[in-house]
Amino acid sequence: MKKVYLVGGGPGDPELITIRGMKLLNQADVVIYDRLISRKLLKYTEPETELIYVGKSSGKHAMKQEEINQLLVEKAGENRVVVRLKGGDPFIFGRGAEEISALVKAEIEFEVVPGVTSAISVPELSCIPLTHRELSSSITLVTGHFAPGNENRVDFSALMADTLVILMGVNNLPEIVPQLLKRRNENTPVAIIEKGTTEEQRIILGNLGNIVEKAKNSEVKPPAVTVVGEVVNLREIFRRGSKKC
Amino acid sequence: MKKVYLVGGGPGDPELITIRGMKLLNQADVVIYDRLISRKLLKYTEPETELIYVGKSSGKHAMKQEEINQLLVEKAGENRVVVRLKGGDPFIFGRGAEEISALVKAEIEFEVVPGVTSAISVPELSCIPLTHRELSSSITLVTGHFAPGNENRVDFSALMADTLVILMGVNNLPEIVPQLLKRRNENTPVAIIEKGTTEEQRIILGNLGNIVEKAKNSEVKPPAVTVVGEVVNLREIFRRGSKKC
Repeated sequence: MKKVYLVGGGPGDPELITIRGMKLLNQADVVIYDRLISRKLLKYTEPETELIYVGKSSGKHAMKQEEINQLLVEKAGENRVVVRLKGGDPFIFGRGAEEISALVKAEIEFEVVPGVTSAISVPELSCIPLTHRELSSSITLVTGHFAPGNENRVDFSALMADTLVILMGVNNLPEIVPQLLKRRNENTPVAIIEKGTTEEQRIILGNLGNIVEKAKNSEVKPPAVTVVGEVVNLREIFRRGSKKC
Repeated sequence: MKKVYLVGGGPGDPELITIRGMKLLNQADVVIYDRLISRKLLKYTEPETELIYVGKSSGKHAMKQEEINQLLVEKAGENRVVVRLKGGDPFIFGRGAEEISALVKAEIEFEVVPGVTSAISVPELSCIPLTHRELSSSITLVTGHFAPGNENRVDFSALMADTLVILMGVNNLPEIVPQLLKRRNENTPVAIIEKGTTEEQRIILGNLGNIVEKAKNSEVKPPAVTVVGEVVNLREIFRRGSKKC
């Protein structure tokens, strides 16, 4: 049976993949993984498993999405158990939908295994809960990554949920923040979590009025998750109870 | 050491809890769990583990949030390993933040173990991806549950992300949908997924113009996840490739 498993790897800690995801990695003949995958997840594979890296390393050319789609179709055609391992959840800005489209077109079966998304878990593991009975009844998750020519694809000023989580947007904060300031106060708290859940994690705290400068001064680099909203202030209280925050 | 683990149980399938969550259930002396938890998750506990149910059964009185907070503090005070098991992710509309506040106040340590949120996984396991390069660059997750007197807490018409996911809102659709229609077209696709990921799962498809009536005719009941946006239409294509959708 020709089948591809799209598996969400979670935020990086190998204990935060699902049991189902771990079992599939163990059964896989081929694992196709990309840049934001923690290498530690690959420990669940067997020594003879074919591991194919399709992400880009700094400054190097990445495999194009069309090439990845083609690779999935090819490997599945060999009747092997193919796992497409993605960071976080496969369908949260991971281009998983494009890969599924290619598989459906090629009449290859697929199964999605959800993962813990970094959008939610990276803030929460830093003592920032995205919802709160008094402070946050709605959350918006948005990509801050613009394809060239697509700068106006997202109207950030229209995203008026109580809490906003911007993924992959740290390089574009100088364009995004002025849009947010159209309808949000400059005192709105902001946290940038760089390299969340890794040992190199850094958190930059500020507000909409000063975060662009703070990010610049701190030389923040991707990958980073940016949280905008009053819930950011809960961190100061919550971290009293958690050594991990 | 006095410590409480807030563990996200995922959407219901016991294979969709994280490895860390499963290990903690196995180590727990006490597990405090609520209504939307799949009983199957409790298989990871040991026979001598104390299991405390704090949810409400149909028509019965549920333990109040303040009582749950107090219970967590008490059980942790007995120096036992306490797991607070919550459906989905502990911080996505699960009142996890309130439980943490109570623990911090009582000077009890906590650790959060993220889970796969139903908000994202229930749609994706029904072949509805919440993001898509052309159709959806932003998602809003919102609670559709109003506390009495709090009907106007959320302005649904202001939530203009490409895709909207409403949790716990199926009984309030007659109030919510007119708000959405202020700024969204009545042809906007809608899917209601009732009892997602269980064997009794039902999906009601429609659009903003007819979904209230369809939900009424189908006698949809909680728990249900409602998805609003163009991505709903992808289901027809994607399910060709997946037997599980």
